[in-house]
Amino acid sequence: LLDQLARLPIPILVDCTASDQMTPVYHAALSRGIHVVAANKKPLTEPFATYTETRSLARRAHRSYRYETTVGASLPIVETLAQLVRTGDRIHLVEGSLSGTLGYLANELTSGVALSQAVLKAKELGYTEPHPRDDLSGKDAARKALILAREAGLQLELSDIVVEPFVPESILAHDALPEFFDALKRFDAEFDARIRGLKAEGRVLRYLATVDLRGEKPTLRVGPVGVPAEHPATRLRGTEAFVAFTTKRYAEYPLVVQGAGAGGAVTAAGVVADVLALSQGLRGR
Amino acid sequence: LLDQLARLPIPILVDCTASDQMTPVYHAALSRGIHVVAANKKPLTEPFATYTETRSLARRAHRSYRYETTVGASLPIVETLAQLVRTGDRIHLVEGSLSGTLGYLANELTSGVALSQAVLKAKELGYTEPHPRDDLSGKDAARKALILAREAGLQLELSDIVVEPFVPESILAHDALPEFFDALKRFDAEFDARIRGLKAEGRVLRYLATVDLRGEKPTLRVGPVGVPAEHPATRLRGTEAFVAFTTKRYAEYPLVVQGAGAGGAVTAAGVVADVLALSQGLRGR
Repeated sequence: LLDQLARLPIPILVDCTASDQMTPVYHAALSRGIHVVAANKKPLTEPFATYTETRSLARRAHRSYRYETTVGASLPIVETLAQLVRTGDRIHLVEGSLSGTLGYLANELTSGVALSQAVLKAKELGYTEPHPRDDLSGKDAARKALILAREAGLQLELSDIVVEPFVPESILAHDALPEFFDALKRFDAEFDARIRGLKAEGRVLRYLATVDLRGEKPTLRVGPVGVPAEHPATRLRGTEAFVAFTTKRYAEYPLVVQGAGAGGAVTAAGVVADVLALSQGLRGR
Repeated sequence: LLDQLARLPIPILVDCTASDQMTPVYHAALSRGIHVVAANKKPLTEPFATYTETRSLARRAHRSYRYETTVGASLPIVETLAQLVRTGDRIHLVEGSLSGTLGYLANELTSGVALSQAVLKAKELGYTEPHPRDDLSGKDAARKALILAREAGLQLELSDIVVEPFVPESILAHDALPEFFDALKRFDAEFDARIRGLKAEGRVLRYLATVDLRGEKPTLRVGPVGVPAEHPATRLRGTEAFVAFTTKRYAEYPLVVQGAGAGGAVTAAGVVADVLALSQGLRGR
């Protein structure tokens, strides 16, 4: 199939799966001169050596490997960061609310909805994975943080990220949904007290990813944070995502990109944009 | 000179002037196979026929014409809009604070500084043109609004934009700086009353550009606006710029890009980014 694809004028492999088996396929494609456009986070969060191999294979073959939609759907986040790095800027801090689902939950909880109710509603609206723990664990946000960290030049692994789940691990351990929701319900009061405590301090709950390159050793953290009123993340509504890049050039105020960061339409549009950018570049425009 | 340039492997004409004489140079370059990267707004705000001729010349010659820095320096604004259009989104509203200088003034005035003092300080800090009226007239913001409107597909001219200057025309008419500042000073009290009036209503003064495509006939407006507290423009600090795109895809909440939108370092970086994006595209990555 790849050999046939390679005969097209501009062959592009578009990966819209969430499979962790795609790296060998990418390698086979790139070595046949096929470009890769991916909405799939898994190959980008493989061990660093594999990640590097894919990218250098693309470089050696003079082929594109684009994956804008892996973070924030079609919001211009990956390419903006790549461009800062490419033009010699120095990244100090990347901070973002990268999970539309957890952003939605944080908003619901802040407006007084009980935790178990908010998760149930999010599930009914189709915002969560089939089992909501896959969102609440923070692992998806961690993958996105790793993609950004690697784009910023850091040689890190998923295991280097400090991930604090949205709710305690003991709740996430429940495989069966009824038990899972029961456990959430027993946690409602504690979570509510936490939200009230934050409010009393003028803070708002957010689930943030932070890539901090300011210290001697870069740190990656994903977890719930009580952000102060002046923080850009307090303004997020609905399932909005945002990323703020603080850099040498954007030192006083960060470069901020904000908007709907999840959903079929915006992700599909982002994939199309990657394909078009690639083919337009090749035609010299 | 252009003939010599055309012999380079990837010849690019980089226009960092603010000259209104560049269109013939672009045409000569493009027809010789030379790409154009521009930080110059003037050729993009020429009569629509000329603007279209330049763009179709580039298309026919399979050459790039990139100008990301003409709006918001290196913030990803022009390319983000182009990508929304390219991928079939429908633009409803483009709203932005496109002048770092007027944004700075609006902030100073809101914090209680008198108009004439704020303009004097902005001039001393190098934020304004040699004669501050070139900023206060709103013409620069109007040019940026036109560039965005045309990118959104509108066949409009500079004269189609309703431009309300930051201060009355009678003040802008003063050629000599001492008389100009005297006139500003006589206007201080009136402007102060206006700011207080807005504050009483919970509003903040901003100088906004609005490209509205929701009605039967698209409207372009540039001028001072009292924006309500929940408006994204209220959050701008210092010389920050922002643009919000409300589209069919980003209907509930707009796609927002915000950050330092003026200054030598970020503009130079944006020009370099355009050059790199162009040459990387040509090498097929």
